Amino acid sequence: MPDSSKRRTTTRRRRRIRSAGNERREQPPSQPIISAIPKLDVLSAPQLEQLHEASLAILSQTGVIFGSDGAISHFRRAGSRIEGKRVYIERDLVAECLAAAPEQYTLHARNPINDVTIGGDTCAVMPGGGPAFVRDLDGKRRAGTHADVEDFTRLSAVSPEVQVVARKAVEAQDVPVQVRHLDCWYSTLTLADKPIQSGFVGGAPEAEDVLQMLEIIFGGERAIDGTPVMHCSVNVNSPLHYDTPMVESLMLLARYGQVALISPFVMAGVTGPTTLAGALAQQNAEVLAGLVLSQLVRPGTPVLYGTASSNLDMRSAAPAIGSPESAISIAACAQLARYYGLPCRAGGALTDSPVPDAQSNYERMFTLLTAVLSGSNYLMHGVGILESYLTLSYEQFVIDLDLINMVRHLVGGLDVSAETLALDTIHDVGPGGFYLETEHTQRHYREAFFMPEISVRKSYEQWQAEGSMDAVARANARCREMLARYQQPPMDSEAANRLYDYVERRKLQLLRKPD
Amino acid sequence: MPDSSKRRTTTRRRRRIRSAGNERREQPPSQPIISAIPKLDVLSAPQLEQLHEASLAILSQTGVIFGSDGAISHFRRAGSRIEGKRVYIERDLVAECLAAAPEQYTLHARNPINDVTIGGDTCAVMPGGGPAFVRDLDGKRRAGTHADVEDFTRLSAVSPEVQVVARKAVEAQDVPVQVRHLDCWYSTLTLADKPIQSGFVGGAPEAEDVLQMLEIIFGGERAIDGTPVMHCSVNVNSPLHYDTPMVESLMLLARYGQVALISPFVMAGVTGPTTLAGALAQQNAEVLAGLVLSQLVRPGTPVLYGTASSNLDMRSAAPAIGSPESAISIAACAQLARYYGLPCRAGGALTDSPVPDAQSNYERMFTLLTAVLSGSNYLMHGVGILESYLTLSYEQFVIDLDLINMVRHLVGGLDVSAETLALDTIHDVGPGGFYLETEHTQRHYREAFFMPEISVRKSYEQWQAEGSMDAVARANARCREMLARYQQPPMDSEAANRLYDYVERRKLQLLRKPD
Repeated sequence: MPDSSKRRTTTRRRRRIRSAGNERREQPPSQPIISAIPKLDVLSAPQLEQLHEASLAILSQTGVIFGSDGAISHFRRAGSRIEGKRVYIERDLVAECLAAAPEQYTLHARNPINDVTIGGDTCAVMPGGGPAFVRDLDGKRRAGTHADVEDFTRLSAVSPEVQVVARKAVEAQDVPVQVRHLDCWYSTLTLADKPIQSGFVGGAPEAEDVLQMLEIIFGGERAIDGTPVMHCSVNVNSPLHYDTPMVESLMLLARYGQVALISPFVMAGVTGPTTLAGALAQQNAEVLAGLVLSQLVRPGTPVLYGTASSNLDMRSAAPAIGSPESAISIAACAQLARYYGLPCRAGGALTDSPVPDAQSNYERMFTLLTAVLSGSNYLMHGVGILESYLTLSYEQFVIDLDLINMVRHLVGGLDVSAETLALDTIHDVGPGGFYLETEHTQRHYREAFFMPEISVRKSYEQWQAEGSMDAVARANARCREMLARYQQPPMDSEAANRLYDYVERRKLQLLRKPD
Repeated sequence: MPDSSKRRTTTRRRRRIRSAGNERREQPPSQPIISAIPKLDVLSAPQLEQLHEASLAILSQTGVIFGSDGAISHFRRAGSRIEGKRVYIERDLVAECLAAAPEQYTLHARNPINDVTIGGDTCAVMPGGGPAFVRDLDGKRRAGTHADVEDFTRLSAVSPEVQVVARKAVEAQDVPVQVRHLDCWYSTLTLADKPIQSGFVGGAPEAEDVLQMLEIIFGGERAIDGTPVMHCSVNVNSPLHYDTPMVESLMLLARYGQVALISPFVMAGVTGPTTLAGALAQQNAEVLAGLVLSQLVRPGTPVLYGTASSNLDMRSAAPAIGSPESAISIAACAQLARYYGLPCRAGGALTDSPVPDAQSNYERMFTLLTAVLSGSNYLMHGVGILESYLTLSYEQFVIDLDLINMVRHLVGGLDVSAETLALDTIHDVGPGGFYLETEHTQRHYREAFFMPEISVRKSYEQWQAEGSMDAVARANARCREMLARYQQPPMDSEAANRLYDYVERRKLQLLRKPD
């Protein structure tokens, strides 16, 4: 980033933080999906046992490699057999650690109104995070920028459908890589006041920066110790390998009592067996291995059982995340997590389509609905993702908010009571009658039905008269409106200044340091 | 239809039937969805009881109007209280008739390879049927024609995803209305050899024509008596009113042992209460009333528990069939049917979007997946529908075949065995290894994963190099290919000639008759 541009950014930031405190906050509080209906099961009870036993066999007989001496020491102290960096984990240790990990927890936001329960019948949503590319409002696919990070954070802030903000909506490719995490975190922390999801590709040094920034926001040293304020992805290097940055992140998170989202990305056919049962058994073993380490570091620290596993398309050798195999993996993992009494991240709104089109929308509804019905508690990449995680789309982001609300209404179930059964009204209206003008309809019509923002239900003639816009065109218009009405949430000015100073100081240090 | 055009059609038909017997038949046999996983429940057991009791209260206290003296006589003989055309049905009679109706049945095709079970864990698919408009392969919305009826029948014939052909894919608006049903039935019976779904808007006279044509095809007089060879929609005139053509159809079907698909179209807020519980209770009462009549006419005759109910959009006063209320209604009806031990038609691939776009695809996957997961046994309008049933789209038809296969794979569940768990392979590959070249992968990679026809999974560069086509453009190309490779299935030439003669004779009679 050239100096002049950096300075411009700086000025803009100071002004924003200062003025923010005096503005009226208009963001609606976040509203997770609450499921009132029984969960969908794709595995029978014996199949669940078979997968569990297969995973235990993998852990004790094949073992897992951990790229950290500290991790190995933990396992040695727990009595595990070790060969070099390969650890063999026995069933008793797994059982003990499963019992220690909590079934649910509260993820705290800097604005307590946005605190969210992770676990039970709740499903929280995080938008797409991390793609290299953006599909912008001019219909172009291009490299992500810091301005995109800011705009997607604004969209997350004004959307009650979003509970957890991605600290890195896209790769801000116009910011030097050494300081990119600082800029991203700064924007995410100041432009929204919801909990945050991250990943520490930079390993422990990056994680230390983040934890210090969070301490500033949440009230000083050790303020977040044991109080979960962020989700952090820990990606397994499948098969059965935790590399150094990931295992270091996992242990650091555990030390702070922050949430590790352990998310293997088994691509059946490449990094796991070509048959889905084997891929699931392996992935489950991988999650359990990470969970054991986290509980060895700090018993009771929250862990989010995760999966991003799917299959390879055998014709194109590309990943297939919108596939039926992806959906089965989502549902099976949610069921395994329930079996273990763990909160679960499975699925999102997933697609392999490069554009917001028919495919991107049937694939995402397929994976999204499967995830929520199966009892997933957290949808990472729940909004905006295209092209097998490679692109984030503004229009798809806005469309997906409607999808989330549709699914929310379905799993909210049915209200059956004397008032909603309306037997008196049915009797009064009688055979061949008409309900529109009854008192019962007057009482209920405003609230009875879901009102979508993007979907149209109108005559063809009216739709034509309004410009014959398809769903993507309507989403484009709505996205522009949402960005226009965004207002920055207030932040304590002392914390804001300390945060700003921390970021600027660290950026100077890191930019001076030779790579 | 002018004479010259009629003659041209005649010639083309004769040639087709004659030659068909000598051609190799290339259509793959039809493959219904088979569910191997537990059904999704949206109602709790007490809610299910509440709805059932509410429906019984409606039947006994509010009653149902039947527009036929014959129907009234049946109820009088069964001891029901009657006021004019209003019948009050008591719980014992409902229970008795529910016990008489079969849990499942085989729907027979003229080619036995296409017979299909309706009920249990099977879900059969029928494409959209009956819209006034077509969205054609040039991207135009226009009035349906007989050529469209023929082309959609050909698409149904070559698609194993389709088990039941719509006898009237669209309204053939270029054929005189008096003889339209004859042309449609002729095309449907000769261009495909799967079972057929119809509706008798013309009442008993139209139904008599159809039953005679079916007798010709299935081997002569009374050949179909008690052998279900067609589904026929019986639409209730909600609330609680069976009008004359519908009640006459219902009784005629029962006499022949043909399947009545009793399908109320309660629009919550207009023809049913604004609260969904009340709309469901009313609709359930309507289905039960029709079922009772069918069993009074012929105990044991198959009935398909149906629903097409949804809600009104309170802003536009248009129906909302892709809504969450539609999905809840689908799931609740499937559960009610299961409770009664009846096969169920609920849902399809439903949307309110006028074009094949993002909305049409997220709404249809939403309703389709909900229907199959809930245990619906029959998807009417499972393929191709747009614009709240008003338009049938060639491109969406082809896209929907992929959707059906995605859902099929998901509900097929997981194969868990020693071979699919692949523990030896996992052990041999070991931590950090690679599966692509293992023997296990070689054994499984061809069959392991679903291969879509429309969805792409490939690099952006490759997608661009292939023309940057979105899903609709790809479906357009595939639809043209499918129509090009269509071959007419063979038919016994004597039956073919008799059918042809019947149709021509009846057309002459009906066209001569003054309206």
